Amino acid sequence: PRILKINNQLGYIAGIDIGATSLELAIADVTGLILIRRAEVTDVHFRPEVVLGRCCELILEMIQEMDILPDQLLGIGVGVPGPVNFARGVLVAPPLMPEWENFPIRDFFKKTFDSAYVVVDNDVNIMALGEQHAGDGAGIDHFIFVKIGTGIGAGIISNGRIHRGSDGCAGDIGHICVDKEGPLCTCGNRGCLEAMSAGPAFAAKALEATRNGSSSVLAQLKESNGGILRPEDVNIACREGDQAALDIIRESGQMIGDVLASLVNFFNPSHIFIGGGISNFGNHLLVAIRRAVLHRSLPLATTHLSIKFSQMSSNAGVMGAISLALDYLFTI
Amino acid sequence: PRILKINNQLGYIAGIDIGATSLELAIADVTGLILIRRAEVTDVHFRPEVVLGRCCELILEMIQEMDILPDQLLGIGVGVPGPVNFARGVLVAPPLMPEWENFPIRDFFKKTFDSAYVVVDNDVNIMALGEQHAGDGAGIDHFIFVKIGTGIGAGIISNGRIHRGSDGCAGDIGHICVDKEGPLCTCGNRGCLEAMSAGPAFAAKALEATRNGSSSVLAQLKESNGGILRPEDVNIACREGDQAALDIIRESGQMIGDVLASLVNFFNPSHIFIGGGISNFGNHLLVAIRRAVLHRSLPLATTHLSIKFSQMSSNAGVMGAISLALDYLFTI
Repeated sequence: PRILKINNQLGYIAGIDIGATSLELAIADVTGLILIRRAEVTDVHFRPEVVLGRCCELILEMIQEMDILPDQLLGIGVGVPGPVNFARGVLVAPPLMPEWENFPIRDFFKKTFDSAYVVVDNDVNIMALGEQHAGDGAGIDHFIFVKIGTGIGAGIISNGRIHRGSDGCAGDIGHICVDKEGPLCTCGNRGCLEAMSAGPAFAAKALEATRNGSSSVLAQLKESNGGILRPEDVNIACREGDQAALDIIRESGQMIGDVLASLVNFFNPSHIFIGGGISNFGNHLLVAIRRAVLHRSLPLATTHLSIKFSQMSSNAGVMGAISLALDYLFTI
Repeated sequence: PRILKINNQLGYIAGIDIGATSLELAIADVTGLILIRRAEVTDVHFRPEVVLGRCCELILEMIQEMDILPDQLLGIGVGVPGPVNFARGVLVAPPLMPEWENFPIRDFFKKTFDSAYVVVDNDVNIMALGEQHAGDGAGIDHFIFVKIGTGIGAGIISNGRIHRGSDGCAGDIGHICVDKEGPLCTCGNRGCLEAMSAGPAFAAKALEATRNGSSSVLAQLKESNGGILRPEDVNIACREGDQAALDIIRESGQMIGDVLASLVNFFNPSHIFIGGGISNFGNHLLVAIRRAVLHRSLPLATTHLSIKFSQMSSNAGVMGAISLALDYLFTI
């Protein structure tokens, strides 16, 4: 029996998904049904006051449009693209956004919405929660949500509950070593999964393919882009039948799959959902990932294992942020 | 408030830890306090009826010595050295003991002890439960128990609960790949952790050291053993200052540590407990494991991470089996 009213008024929940370059916000009722939403570009290199201040403005706008009062906002769930100390609700050593370290996100929102509980988590955890509450992860006890974009991270559901780990940094699989002799990563080690198979690695390998003359399609794309190649250009070239682009996708898929094979042996999930920007790269990527996992994981762990793209696209984050706030509200 | 009596009589719990070559049994009261115990050698290559029949005899012996009735046995927890389908209480494709596959262990015990709930789990899970209930794992939300012996396996505690995974085979880390060009493993793949750094690998590397003349100490041990080298001979040689033996231990420690580094990034435990036969190899092994983990895991995940030997020695298994039965009894 969920509390539907406070002071005889209906209660609402806001979900905020802060990405490196985008904001997604929504307000839902206490059943989790989204009633209104906003999305716009941002840049987390801005100071937290700027980005979070803009979030407050957008929430106030939506509240006004809904014709409700700020006091009716009972919970705010916030996802941020960096490691979060969940108990304290702050970012810890976030590589993308150093100025956000230890910034009191909860207090900031409480200044405008003092009736709301504010819960902060990292972006991949909220995507896993979104998949669990509103996607194909519903009712599944053990799954891993893998986000492949500029970085690579995982959200983990164990025994039906999110597993954040002892310091809240569980799922940080982007820095698992795939090649001790590999390229230097931003973390200081060599051959991290992220450095070898996430977005920037796609772009770097594409550039290499234009240099060594193995792809005329990528060379043309580079020229028409003004000398720049983006990760999605590899996808475009692949769809045009370019072999070098296909090889880049397969190679990344295999490396990601090799790491997931180890995690499948360790964690024995029934499902792996793949989301994030690179997951738009389609079946070549998925097939390479699946092949590597099936090759290296134990048969007992793969017989019932499903590996597929998340069907929620950008919805997972904002739905998860709402679920996070709802769970928190109805647990306390 | 735990049920202490059934039909006005005190209730008791039996714990059974079946190893590849040893049996450990104990009977405890419903607080988990062990009152009596038995240990003897066995061989799981025997048929299940033989080994489990012997377990029943030993329990009946202990019950007689305690002057209680078989009906007072409320629960039996059983640990077995192979993958268990926990819901069904049977072994699935156990490499060490193919004849045990699908054998109805619960029914077998129920024939003699029909008042007892019987719960079956794999040996590493019950060691993790033992560590949680009676060892340094008490009160710790997220830890990994790693058993290094003839094989390598892990027991996982997430959010204070054992994580068995979707098919009950979580923790099967022995077949994680450490070297794609490595030696062939019994599982059919190459370079599995277990094939390169568990007990038999110690013995094989020691034999190699006698062949290439790099260790006179191991050569002497081999001669005095009648031409055979056991894993523990590497430890003995190392204690005598043999460099080749020390190198073997360090190399295994590093490989185990490399795998644990990935799992630390993924799972973010606060503690890793190491048990099993090879864990007697002392600080050289532990130092090599720690060094590899600290080198490859993210700082946030290692700042508060403790990696140490389990202090429970062979007790963890039988205590865990008792805890398993107690948990089950007091949950239903």
